[in-house]
Amino acid sequence: MPSDQLKLYESSASPNSRRARIFLAEKGISVMRVPVDLAAKEQFSEAYARINPRRVVPTLVLEDGTAIGEVPAIQRYLEAAYPATPLLGTSPKDEALVTMWDRRMELEGFAAVMETVRNNAAGLAGRAIAGTHDYAQIPALVTRGRQRIADFYDDLETRLAEAPFVAGNRFSVADITAIVTIDFATRALEMPIPASHAASARWYALVAARPSLAA
Amino acid sequence: MPSDQLKLYESSASPNSRRARIFLAEKGISVMRVPVDLAAKEQFSEAYARINPRRVVPTLVLEDGTAIGEVPAIQRYLEAAYPATPLLGTSPKDEALVTMWDRRMELEGFAAVMETVRNNAAGLAGRAIAGTHDYAQIPALVTRGRQRIADFYDDLETRLAEAPFVAGNRFSVADITAIVTIDFATRALEMPIPASHAASARWYALVAARPSLAA
Repeated sequence: MPSDQLKLYESSASPNSRRARIFLAEKGISVMRVPVDLAAKEQFSEAYARINPRRVVPTLVLEDGTAIGEVPAIQRYLEAAYPATPLLGTSPKDEALVTMWDRRMELEGFAAVMETVRNNAAGLAGRAIAGTHDYAQIPALVTRGRQRIADFYDDLETRLAEAPFVAGNRFSVADITAIVTIDFATRALEMPIPASHAASARWYALVAARPSLAA
Repeated sequence: MPSDQLKLYESSASPNSRRARIFLAEKGISVMRVPVDLAAKEQFSEAYARINPRRVVPTLVLEDGTAIGEVPAIQRYLEAAYPATPLLGTSPKDEALVTMWDRRMELEGFAAVMETVRNNAAGLAGRAIAGTHDYAQIPALVTRGRQRIADFYDDLETRLAEAPFVAGNRFSVADITAIVTIDFATRALEMPIPASHAASARWYALVAARPSLAA
């Protein structure tokens, strides 16, 4: 389902951009991709600030010029505008459970990895939180972050020992958030799924094989 | 619209519970309220852990016993099951903008206030993050948290100088999240809206007068 009206401003290196790309690929929506060069700090340019005042990627720009920032907001737009292949749930109860589990993956997993990386990387000094404002790094957050990620992996293992997918019996956005988190922790912090976590390993192999993961 | 099938486990002192109560009141849904005594640490009881393994309030329990944790998940259920008086948007674009603004209110406002309070209160030593795991307080987060709240107030003023409500022309869940954040910052940290913020003061007076705010 091509949509020449939609533009996604994104970066190939950005885990948040990857969440949007996988979501689009799962739904079979093709959009115009506009690369933002984070290494060259293009997100801080005046041109990009007019598109996204928070100066973060990704941003989805609609046909009428409306700019949607924040990954869950982009996903909500795409689900509402292109309801085929639902990824956010199919009944009130199911929508609520997907929202709950996606949020847990994001707050306990994705945000913990992001916080650990941002408070550690030399290149992000003074930029401990993404967005408009500058905040100094806090070294104690790196130590705590690694513990939070270990706890996240334990909780994920408990969950995946009781359900085939994060939100229950069907693949959903919560699986996308979880696998992007794990790949990011593996690459940026050398913290892959612990070897003893059999249920997580089974789930990971299944999800990683989906064609959308290459998006 | 009474629903005797729905139970909300909540605490009158909990800002997250207040977000759920205001949402219910705006939609005119009455549910059975079950108080959880946080002062007596009832959320850590075995009985409550069976309802919400994260041991936080609020939790919405459906007729079939399904327990929905996380405020945005509870709100998503209520919006899908009771679509009258929409608070999460009415078109794909509107849904996306409400999601984006509600998320900004939550991550930049509500979460900053919560982090500041949890890393400061003597009674929360070892409990710097709500949920299953214990994390030590980090004093640097209190200093940084106050700066984040000041930045949040500045950004909110900018937004409310350009739009009557947080997400645009209509009252939405983003206004609920914002006002609960402000009341919590005022009460717990003595950080009300700065006196110079005229647009925020105009908006606050309008929203605080809604009957749902007493819920």
